[in-house]
Amino acid sequence: MFTDFKLMDDRPVYIQVKDYMKRLITKGALQANQKLPSTRELGMLLNVSRNTVVAAYADLEEEDLIYVERGKGNFVTPSAVGVTDAEALQVSWQVDWKQHLNELARTAEEEDIMKRGIRSAQGMISFTSIAPDEKLFDMNNFRRAFLDRMSLEGDIVLNYGYAKGYKPLIDYLLRYMENKGVDLAGKDILITNGFTEGLDIVLSSLNKKHGRILCENPTHHTALKNFKLHGFAITGVDIEPDGISLQKLELALSQQAFDLAYLVPSYQNPTGIVMSHEKRIAAARLLARHGVPILEDGFNEELRYSGSHVAPLIACGGGSNSIIYAGSYSKILFPGLRVGWLLADKELIDYLVSVKRARTIHTSTLDQSVLYQYLHNGYFEKYLKRAKAEYKRKYELAVQCCHSFIPCQRLSGDGGLHLFLEFEKEFDTRALLDSCRDKGVIFTPGTIFYTDGGGSNTMRLGFSRVADEDIIKGTKRIGEAVLQMM
Amino acid sequence: MFTDFKLMDDRPVYIQVKDYMKRLITKGALQANQKLPSTRELGMLLNVSRNTVVAAYADLEEEDLIYVERGKGNFVTPSAVGVTDAEALQVSWQVDWKQHLNELARTAEEEDIMKRGIRSAQGMISFTSIAPDEKLFDMNNFRRAFLDRMSLEGDIVLNYGYAKGYKPLIDYLLRYMENKGVDLAGKDILITNGFTEGLDIVLSSLNKKHGRILCENPTHHTALKNFKLHGFAITGVDIEPDGISLQKLELALSQQAFDLAYLVPSYQNPTGIVMSHEKRIAAARLLARHGVPILEDGFNEELRYSGSHVAPLIACGGGSNSIIYAGSYSKILFPGLRVGWLLADKELIDYLVSVKRARTIHTSTLDQSVLYQYLHNGYFEKYLKRAKAEYKRKYELAVQCCHSFIPCQRLSGDGGLHLFLEFEKEFDTRALLDSCRDKGVIFTPGTIFYTDGGGSNTMRLGFSRVADEDIIKGTKRIGEAVLQMM
Repeated sequence: MFTDFKLMDDRPVYIQVKDYMKRLITKGALQANQKLPSTRELGMLLNVSRNTVVAAYADLEEEDLIYVERGKGNFVTPSAVGVTDAEALQVSWQVDWKQHLNELARTAEEEDIMKRGIRSAQGMISFTSIAPDEKLFDMNNFRRAFLDRMSLEGDIVLNYGYAKGYKPLIDYLLRYMENKGVDLAGKDILITNGFTEGLDIVLSSLNKKHGRILCENPTHHTALKNFKLHGFAITGVDIEPDGISLQKLELALSQQAFDLAYLVPSYQNPTGIVMSHEKRIAAARLLARHGVPILEDGFNEELRYSGSHVAPLIACGGGSNSIIYAGSYSKILFPGLRVGWLLADKELIDYLVSVKRARTIHTSTLDQSVLYQYLHNGYFEKYLKRAKAEYKRKYELAVQCCHSFIPCQRLSGDGGLHLFLEFEKEFDTRALLDSCRDKGVIFTPGTIFYTDGGGSNTMRLGFSRVADEDIIKGTKRIGEAVLQMM
Repeated sequence: MFTDFKLMDDRPVYIQVKDYMKRLITKGALQANQKLPSTRELGMLLNVSRNTVVAAYADLEEEDLIYVERGKGNFVTPSAVGVTDAEALQVSWQVDWKQHLNELARTAEEEDIMKRGIRSAQGMISFTSIAPDEKLFDMNNFRRAFLDRMSLEGDIVLNYGYAKGYKPLIDYLLRYMENKGVDLAGKDILITNGFTEGLDIVLSSLNKKHGRILCENPTHHTALKNFKLHGFAITGVDIEPDGISLQKLELALSQQAFDLAYLVPSYQNPTGIVMSHEKRIAAARLLARHGVPILEDGFNEELRYSGSHVAPLIACGGGSNSIIYAGSYSKILFPGLRVGWLLADKELIDYLVSVKRARTIHTSTLDQSVLYQYLHNGYFEKYLKRAKAEYKRKYELAVQCCHSFIPCQRLSGDGGLHLFLEFEKEFDTRALLDSCRDKGVIFTPGTIFYTDGGGSNTMRLGFSRVADEDIIKGTKRIGEAVLQMM
């Protein structure tokens, strides 16, 4: 005994000794009423100072895990030994959990592409990520924002907050959305744990009168997954170079009724296409006429590299209340901070606040308040300029490389952090992936983004975290593999 | 125009000027192709330096909101004006959102006690909160933990993490739970956005073979609300001074089948009762025999002021897998950080990870990593000692005051941050609350904690955030009101 004690770095040693002894006691390695080594003995056995053991024993006594007999030493408190083998045996029961899980849990597991996704091996060039490049993060300003907020109201920030969100952040975002042309009258904001929770809360709260959602085809995989998890049928409408096909949208609306339309008008995932201003108005008008509310995914809206500002869909309706906007800074700023928001009709938000409270009480106030301070201090503007310059460079390089090396039929992506490639109908990007993986390059085959099982001739190339030379090398190798397959 | 510009503190002025102009443009106060004031003019109008306006105009141009004509000045980009009134009119449509919301959203709103709760007015003594006292937070060590973690791997912490959670925190918690006597073989941990998300994920994933959950009566209101939201019927089993009544538990199990038992064995909310070791074994055995898995709420387990350590339920089953443990540091440490965990069967956790990913991608890595560092550095141990000493003092004072001033039939609460009072059957604590509110004191009437509409003669007194003199004053006034009503 006492030979397997190993010291960790940067953790007080007396706590490590205490934890170690606690483990021996609760594991039954030390018996009830057993005498412990003296502080001097244990110090020598564990190679720590006697004072350290004294402090550890004091804590163990305070926690009633050991007791002291004056002049005799320290002993294990009988109740601290916990559960005996005989007791555990009485309670023992193995559950077959799979039998206790429902459709939702099983579908969530089946549709979890992160579990079935393409794994990147050491040294591989991976185009699968569309997360921001952490090398661009400005840690100094982030630290400053944290320290600023903490010194202003650290104690408040660390205690319970409101389900609706952190007030200064909500006010900031309201102004931010107003500056995008949104009429705020009758609207309000709910802060969520990123875009995904916003989507989930909306889908959880909508009734399934028609049981069907309309979206672009292809579209964001997480959205498709969550539509399925919530039991909605999905109708996908094809995308053209300037956004959703109005003709096909009208056709779909004439054929079926929908509970919701989910649209990603800017730098759409996966196609990277930006819906034109005219199309936004026309699409919103068509959906309004057919009585279909819109959930607008503001995904990557900030990552405009060129061309002019396009007002979000929610700005198109003026004072009307039929559009819900889901925003997030995750894709550009810090995804590790889970902060997104829903901007929508006040009465609707009031219901969603209650759903949010039942789900997660509120979004981390630490995340919200540090993000607020970061935005308020103007650090975001500075960061965005730098990040956009860098991503624009990468974007242009990636476009150029694709044109030069990959013989695809169509390349799309007006900005953002990824490009979308289409090959001839018969071409199979899953087979291409197999071949590329052998060459040390991976990407995301397009099928997971399709609502109709299509897209086997498409792929998404995320370039945000790929070094310049790897963008060149990687696209070259993909191009070679394509040519070999053709 | 330009008269309503107001400067905020601590935000770069050029950004404020830019935002102000952006608003004028997107709001249509400035027309397409309209000439903007010169930088000198606008500087004078807004009372800022000319250089500030130059920087603001440069950004507006970079964002394509204005354009420059050499020698002529700056003009509003037509597309920046956004949506015209005529366009907005086409899209205009008012949705009656209530008609689009389902049962879940409506029930969440109806059962949202935070919306209907007792509001505390200025100067009132409020016993409604059971949140920790933020005056006890040790901001310095929290800051230190943040800075430590940031310097070690800030960039990683701020980018995407894993749905399962932050690895160092998971490893820490596994050891932490092992030290409580839990056999970790075949078990794993999922990090959640506090206890509530853990509960919600479990309830979302369980099939409703019997559609019924068993719990203590009274119990945690959020749990009751979420059982209802997930469509489960509820059977409450009475509590005795040493925990759930085994006789009534056995009776309930013989009468009906259950999908799950939800138990709060330590410092139960609202009664504050600790279930004895023997009862834990006996209750777990009964439930195993009847094939009912357990969700154990580790609520406030750390807030033991006296008496000996009691092993959690999940430690009672040894290597069996039928108990899910939901833990959280929120009630003692920092509720503003939303971090909780589920410890359960590995296979089950693997499914719940996918549900979690579909819900919120992952819990804030910032929260997780700073909490990890705080725990690792041993700050938690130090804080807990100080907090426990303070809460113990308050607890003892509150107990003494209740005994002295409030003529109740039963007072319970073995620790934690609240006490529970029962009066004679006919006594109505809602009427008492009305009377107390007039005297400037509020508390939580017990009915919301009951599964069967009972508890109208009970109340919960949270003392964690009430000053000593207010505990004395408040309980005195409650006692006077009780005597008046009797």
